[in-house]
Amino acid sequence: MDRKSLGQTARRAGNRLRRPLTKGVRRRTAPGTPPGVILADPAATPSSITLMGFTADQYEERKNATPDDIAEMRTVHRVVWIDVTGLGDVDLIRKLGAMFDIHPLVLEDIVNVHQRAKTEDYDDKLYMVVRMVHERDHLDSEQISIILGEGYVITFQEHAGDCFDPVRARVRREGTRMRTSGADYLAYALIDAVIDSYFPVLEAMGDRIEALEDDVVRRPDPQVVETLHALRHDLLAMRRAVWPHREMINTALRQESRLIAPTTGIYLRDCYDHAVQLMDIVETYREIASGLLDVYLSSLSNRMNEIMKVLTIIATIFIPLSFVAGVYGMNFDPAASPWNMPELRWPYGYPVVLGAMGAGALAMLVYFWRRGWIGRSR
Amino acid sequence: MDRKSLGQTARRAGNRLRRPLTKGVRRRTAPGTPPGVILADPAATPSSITLMGFTADQYEERKNATPDDIAEMRTVHRVVWIDVTGLGDVDLIRKLGAMFDIHPLVLEDIVNVHQRAKTEDYDDKLYMVVRMVHERDHLDSEQISIILGEGYVITFQEHAGDCFDPVRARVRREGTRMRTSGADYLAYALIDAVIDSYFPVLEAMGDRIEALEDDVVRRPDPQVVETLHALRHDLLAMRRAVWPHREMINTALRQESRLIAPTTGIYLRDCYDHAVQLMDIVETYREIASGLLDVYLSSLSNRMNEIMKVLTIIATIFIPLSFVAGVYGMNFDPAASPWNMPELRWPYGYPVVLGAMGAGALAMLVYFWRRGWIGRSR
Amino acid sequence: MDRKSLGQTARRAGNRLRRPLTKGVRRRTAPGTPPGVILADPAATPSSITLMGFTADQYEERKNATPDDIAEMRTVHRVVWIDVTGLGDVDLIRKLGAMFDIHPLVLEDIVNVHQRAKTEDYDDKLYMVVRMVHERDHLDSEQISIILGEGYVITFQEHAGDCFDPVRARVRREGTRMRTSGADYLAYALIDAVIDSYFPVLEAMGDRIEALEDDVVRRPDPQVVETLHALRHDLLAMRRAVWPHREMINTALRQESRLIAPTTGIYLRDCYDHAVQLMDIVETYREIASGLLDVYLSSLSNRMNEIMKVLTIIATIFIPLSFVAGVYGMNFDPAASPWNMPELRWPYGYPVVLGAMGAGALAMLVYFWRRGWIGRSR
Amino acid sequence: MDRKSLGQTARRAGNRLRRPLTKGVRRRTAPGTPPGVILADPAATPSSITLMGFTADQYEERKNATPDDIAEMRTVHRVVWIDVTGLGDVDLIRKLGAMFDIHPLVLEDIVNVHQRAKTEDYDDKLYMVVRMVHERDHLDSEQISIILGEGYVITFQEHAGDCFDPVRARVRREGTRMRTSGADYLAYALIDAVIDSYFPVLEAMGDRIEALEDDVVRRPDPQVVETLHALRHDLLAMRRAVWPHREMINTALRQESRLIAPTTGIYLRDCYDHAVQLMDIVETYREIASGLLDVYLSSLSNRMNEIMKVLTIIATIFIPLSFVAGVYGMNFDPAASPWNMPELRWPYGYPVVLGAMGAGALAMLVYFWRRGWIGRSR
Amino acid sequence: MDRKSLGQTARRAGNRLRRPLTKGVRRRTAPGTPPGVILADPAATPSSITLMGFTADQYEERKNATPDDIAEMRTVHRVVWIDVTGLGDVDLIRKLGAMFDIHPLVLEDIVNVHQRAKTEDYDDKLYMVVRMVHERDHLDSEQISIILGEGYVITFQEHAGDCFDPVRARVRREGTRMRTSGADYLAYALIDAVIDSYFPVLEAMGDRIEALEDDVVRRPDPQVVETLHALRHDLLAMRRAVWPHREMINTALRQESRLIAPTTGIYLRDCYDHAVQLMDIVETYREIASGLLDVYLSSLSNRMNEIMKVLTIIATIFIPLSFVAGVYGMNFDPAASPWNMPELRWPYGYPVVLGAMGAGALAMLVYFWRRGWIGRSR
Repeated sequence: MDRKSLGQTARRAGNRLRRPLTKGVRRRTAPGTPPGVILADPAATPSSITLMGFTADQYEERKNATPDDIAEMRTVHRVVWIDVTGLGDVDLIRKLGAMFDIHPLVLEDIVNVHQRAKTEDYDDKLYMVVRMVHERDHLDSEQISIILGEGYVITFQEHAGDCFDPVRARVRREGTRMRTSGADYLAYALIDAVIDSYFPVLEAMGDRIEALEDDVVRRPDPQVVETLHALRHDLLAMRRAVWPHREMINTALRQESRLIAPTTGIYLRDCYDHAVQLMDIVETYREIASGLLDVYLSSLSNRMNEIMKVLTIIATIFIPLSFVAGVYGMNFDPAASPWNMPELRWPYGYPVVLGAMGAGALAMLVYFWRRGWIGRSR
Repeated sequence: MDRKSLGQTARRAGNRLRRPLTKGVRRRTAPGTPPGVILADPAATPSSITLMGFTADQYEERKNATPDDIAEMRTVHRVVWIDVTGLGDVDLIRKLGAMFDIHPLVLEDIVNVHQRAKTEDYDDKLYMVVRMVHERDHLDSEQISIILGEGYVITFQEHAGDCFDPVRARVRREGTRMRTSGADYLAYALIDAVIDSYFPVLEAMGDRIEALEDDVVRRPDPQVVETLHALRHDLLAMRRAVWPHREMINTALRQESRLIAPTTGIYLRDCYDHAVQLMDIVETYREIASGLLDVYLSSLSNRMNEIMKVLTIIATIFIPLSFVAGVYGMNFDPAASPWNMPELRWPYGYPVVLGAMGAGALAMLVYFWRRGWIGRSR
Repeated sequence: MDRKSLGQTARRAGNRLRRPLTKGVRRRTAPGTPPGVILADPAATPSSITLMGFTADQYEERKNATPDDIAEMRTVHRVVWIDVTGLGDVDLIRKLGAMFDIHPLVLEDIVNVHQRAKTEDYDDKLYMVVRMVHERDHLDSEQISIILGEGYVITFQEHAGDCFDPVRARVRREGTRMRTSGADYLAYALIDAVIDSYFPVLEAMGDRIEALEDDVVRRPDPQVVETLHALRHDLLAMRRAVWPHREMINTALRQESRLIAPTTGIYLRDCYDHAVQLMDIVETYREIASGLLDVYLSSLSNRMNEIMKVLTIIATIFIPLSFVAGVYGMNFDPAASPWNMPELRWPYGYPVVLGAMGAGALAMLVYFWRRGWIGRSR
Repeated sequence: MDRKSLGQTARRAGNRLRRPLTKGVRRRTAPGTPPGVILADPAATPSSITLMGFTADQYEERKNATPDDIAEMRTVHRVVWIDVTGLGDVDLIRKLGAMFDIHPLVLEDIVNVHQRAKTEDYDDKLYMVVRMVHERDHLDSEQISIILGEGYVITFQEHAGDCFDPVRARVRREGTRMRTSGADYLAYALIDAVIDSYFPVLEAMGDRIEALEDDVVRRPDPQVVETLHALRHDLLAMRRAVWPHREMINTALRQESRLIAPTTGIYLRDCYDHAVQLMDIVETYREIASGLLDVYLSSLSNRMNEIMKVLTIIATIFIPLSFVAGVYGMNFDPAASPWNMPELRWPYGYPVVLGAMGAGALAMLVYFWRRGWIGRSR
Repeated sequence: MDRKSLGQTARRAGNRLRRPLTKGVRRRTAPGTPPGVILADPAATPSSITLMGFTADQYEERKNATPDDIAEMRTVHRVVWIDVTGLGDVDLIRKLGAMFDIHPLVLEDIVNVHQRAKTEDYDDKLYMVVRMVHERDHLDSEQISIILGEGYVITFQEHAGDCFDPVRARVRREGTRMRTSGADYLAYALIDAVIDSYFPVLEAMGDRIEALEDDVVRRPDPQVVETLHALRHDLLAMRRAVWPHREMINTALRQESRLIAPTTGIYLRDCYDHAVQLMDIVETYREIASGLLDVYLSSLSNRMNEIMKVLTIIATIFIPLSFVAGVYGMNFDPAASPWNMPELRWPYGYPVVLGAMGAGALAMLVYFWRRGWIGRSR
């Protein structure tokens, strides 16, 4: 894509993105509702369970599984990944909650998909929330709840479609570290995939910023400021999404939970580094974006200066000349008195006046040239 | 509500909201007053007590109760909620203070309703202050004092009308966790209801911001900046109200008071998450609002550029032309000398001059078009 | 006071307040002077001692006391308050220093009245500095040194006149907590009175800000920015004065000094809350004040836009019309050729031209109206 | 180089430097890739190993060495430095990984050259990442991975060409502390060389800032703001590169690893001081750069004021005069009535009008002079 | 000095001060140089040693002493102060290093005079760096290295001339605390003298700020912004110099080194208070200075508004009038048709037109007066 169309894409993206300001605030249960009440968002996708069970040498996958399948699978495989997509089926979620003895508050958080990334330790399980971003037609983030227990990982996703396909591929391929590791490694791999999903989105944002950097100087039209504002909105949203992940991973690491093996801890630390890097990039982008506004404002001021210069040069040259012309357009009657505009009858009156006008205009031009208003600076 | 009327609402809201700047400062006791002196604000609502006592299978409610009722209730029920609305009756408050052995400083804080949210530990009771917001005709916050003791919760509210009705409903309904839990769970439920009361107010603010976002670009008239200033006022007020809650809940959690059971601690931690989320939203809104000012200022600059362009184009085209017309309006006498404006008598003098003027105007237009002042950019 | 005169007061206040910028820096002893050297400021008020001694049932007060009186008093009363006003009499201060075994550095700090609020622990005594503000003819802060020892409190004030009268009244009144408590409670009462003295000053500042908020939008004349700058100066000064108090009280609390009884500690914690509240208000005011500047700047820009609109509308309408008039004011000789301004002799030439001018003006007006420059927006 | 050409260099530098915004984001492995996967960047330089082994009295150097050489060398020398330049040969890196038992995540980090500076402790070795800057044709940073083990240091560089020549010289020279110290001292020397490499780059930036400081006031043309923006970009990049080094060294110091002797610790602390100093300088530069924008914007405003003054002076003087001339250019027929422009026939009409015009112009000039628009201020 | 000349001084100071931006970066040893290499700056002053030895009752002073004198002195006196001015004689410094067993890194830091203030603990000695400021012809800071050992203090100064004369006087005067205390008290006295040297410099800066505060409102010419920029430069430099001192003293206090007696610790804490006060003042000044820029920018805007108002008033009044005059200057031939400008022959045509013009001008003036553009506001 060339730079110009990138700029236009950025603008369109910007306009698309200005709506969901109150998103993180609105769709909550009514104030005062008892905790642990699980209400399906009417707009939620219907739920479906996909199971993947594996040991080092075995591997099984079941789509549209039922809760009963889970129990069965767990007897056979060392690690079972219960992947629930769609949060529309509250009964199913409650049933899973009962089966795995999940705290009602956790179930509530799973369904209220506006949590910040966090880790909560419930002794025999870890509840982790991460937020996956994707930029389909607009920047959006999706809550992924991960419950890590002894020998199983449960994930709850808002919609079908995720960034976990490479993880699935690794589960399917025999001989990978995944197949020989425990549930903690699977949980790590999922978190890592989510963190990694931020990078292409940030890259796209970087492109938008670069396109804007050109526009701001070369085409500082009023739309630029709207686009810039939209960009800053998005960066704010990114920042809100990214920041808690650092704390989330850190909490998981510090918890010294027996659920996470030290060898997996090393991998999580790597993940932590990536989260820090994300924050670093987002902050840098934010600084650049706020610098861009300064550039834009001074571009505007420069334009104004240019406009005013043109006006001033033209007006300053011609207004005095017009005055002179006006003087000799007066109708004082030379016949009435020798003092009344005798110039009008002088043989060289006209050329002399024209010459004087030309000299005046020239003097002005020299003056402007000296001040650098014309010719020298752009 | 459509976007435009939202904007107007926002403006009206803004104007209403500019008064209470010194509110948190003014209505205090005179400097140097001994501590623990309890002076009723003359404007305070008269006090009335509502009692709710319950055990798992019993439930009783008394409106306009007397202090004597309290003692009686406490003998019967495991948990008693003493809800005092209106702080006008200082004697009553003092009597309650004596009955429950409340420290004079706490009584003072209950009546001086400008406390920040906080938790104070008095061994056998916890004193907690929270601030409830509502946006009746303007954004206002009300101090709720909560005293949690063994088997009782006392709440002091400034006015009748609160966000506790869902909590009351849960008390009334048998079989809820509320009925089987202790006073600490009731206290949690109240705090949670208060925290939740911020979300709809923030949602309304989000709407105001979105309305402003449109106005700022499309109708950048001088009122916008007033509205924006009022909005930033409100956000500051929200921030002052919200921030201390995090610390308040955290203190309650850390205190490891035997008054709060570990199971309730988990719920309080959930509450803490909500407080953090509130802060997060308020900070985001503040950033957006301050970004809006930048957008507004550049909208103004853009407008100015537009205005100046029109002036400059018109002036630059017509001032030189007027000069030429002025020249040929001079009254030099062609009869006096062949040098004096012979053009006036040339057969094609007039059309030539008109043509030259037209050509000049055209050249100017081309120049402006080339600079992008007309036609190309908006 | 009505809003307008408040504004003028604010302005005058502002102008008065711009001087003492280097005050906290200047009047120090020469660099390299040995520590503990006590030099009276030549401008210092002469010193005088007022004694108040009390036990639960006794009470005595002596004005213009001598050091000998102190010793005598201390044998009789449980608590003695030695109140020194005026720091001009260095000998007296040295004598007190010797009598109570005060560290030379403390004596130096007492006389060099530019200390920040702080607490220093000298085992058998606590040295506390607080700063009292008053707004007589201008905002000023006065250093109060408080030395708390076993059975006595010494205070050093710069000038006569303080905010301690309510404390004195409580000492005089029998049966107050003051009379039954120790020296630590007296010290607390003094600190509390000082902290409380900030609230009315802040209230006055709040009024100034509100007056400015009106001015900034309605009368954005150049003085506003001066007043605003002065206000920000004052807020900076307030902040410098207020902030260290929090740390000061905290240090006193943490020191776990046996000089401060736990029961008094609870009162000090209340004091701490007030200090935090002060900081909170000052910070809020600072944010509002810096927001006001933005409002002012956009008011200016708006004014400029208004001015330019008027100019542009007038110029854009009349300059082209003047040009047309100029054309028909040219003196081409219709007699010389049929091409030379035949319009001048057309029967309806004049009305047609006038009509065309009117139509042009109207078209312009419609154009401006469409752009919202006239009629629609203010 | 004189100031002006410095400015031009700065500009060119600026333009060159605006591209690699997304560099730290882009070239990553696909999201979800298993950790420890080592993919050579297709653009990576081919790898080559240089070995330096030494004891106090022996010294050996081998270019283009093979892994087998390493084993041989390690039997002979106390310390071996394995310097790998170019990361194109993934097999070689894997082989080294196996030979020294390097964690797969470390190998991945070595090849993904967008790590922030960090220290990771793997018990028997320390993995340290530093970033070396150079400004060949544009500011660029290169990742240097340092693995410190018992008796060896492995370095991985992206490209040939580094800042380690002085370190090599010290290794070659007998009797230096280098020759008598262990591998930890060598690692320190490398880190120190990298930290030192920032100083000349920062010095160049300081020169660019100084050149800009002149331009901003004297030649505030639109390019200045672009150059300034580019400079701020670079400073952001520097800051991102510099900051993590402090933490990196600190971690190495705190780790209390037996790999780093206490005597070397003292040197590392010195290195830490340098890193802090770098941060200090970068922050100062950033503040100056953001101050420069303010200066630039007010230069623009000043220019505008100058331009407007010229226009206003000229227009204000001549427009009224032109009006007067216009009045006497009206064609009212004096013959039709004595009221119709009798001045035209007055004997001194013309001189009187001219005189009045002159007086008016003079009055205007005096007025402008009084306001300080002409003559007095520049 | 009156306010105006102060302003000019400030300006000159500003211009002088813009150079040494890269000073803290440039004059370093080449990157990669081994640590502990001591290279004299070619511009360094030649070294000379002054010795002062004292016990409570003895006192001796030697100028231009040799290293041998030191050993001799130390046998006689309890405390010896070895004051080295000028760092040009590297051999001498090395000799001292050997004599007192000073770590090579310390020697390097002594000579590389761009250290930040810091304290380093080498068991039997403390190495402290402080920075002394003076404002001879421009603001400059000088590194003073202080080595405190058992019974001696060594100071290294860049140039002759310091702020230590009062300390020397105290050493010379018998009976001072200095004479009875140990080397730690001497070190404290030196640090205190350095800290104190900042106050007069800050006072001068305060004066510059006050002068600027006047200029910014009353004479907002373009130089003001340059002066302001220079001032902010200086404040940044001051801040960089001041901040580390707090940490430096704190480290010395925390080190619990047996070299510093508890009684001296109390004095050092006093010193710490002063350092905090310095930071406080610098930060306040920085805030004021950045507020000044806002004031300046709005002064500029105000000026512009004033200028534009004048232009607009004049143009708006006279352009329409000129148009009217232009209309009656048209040459339509009244003889050709009764429709052609019959007004020209009306008996009262001229006075009516003049009257209409006057009425129009008046209407305009009333309009401007109503909008507050003339008469009412300044």
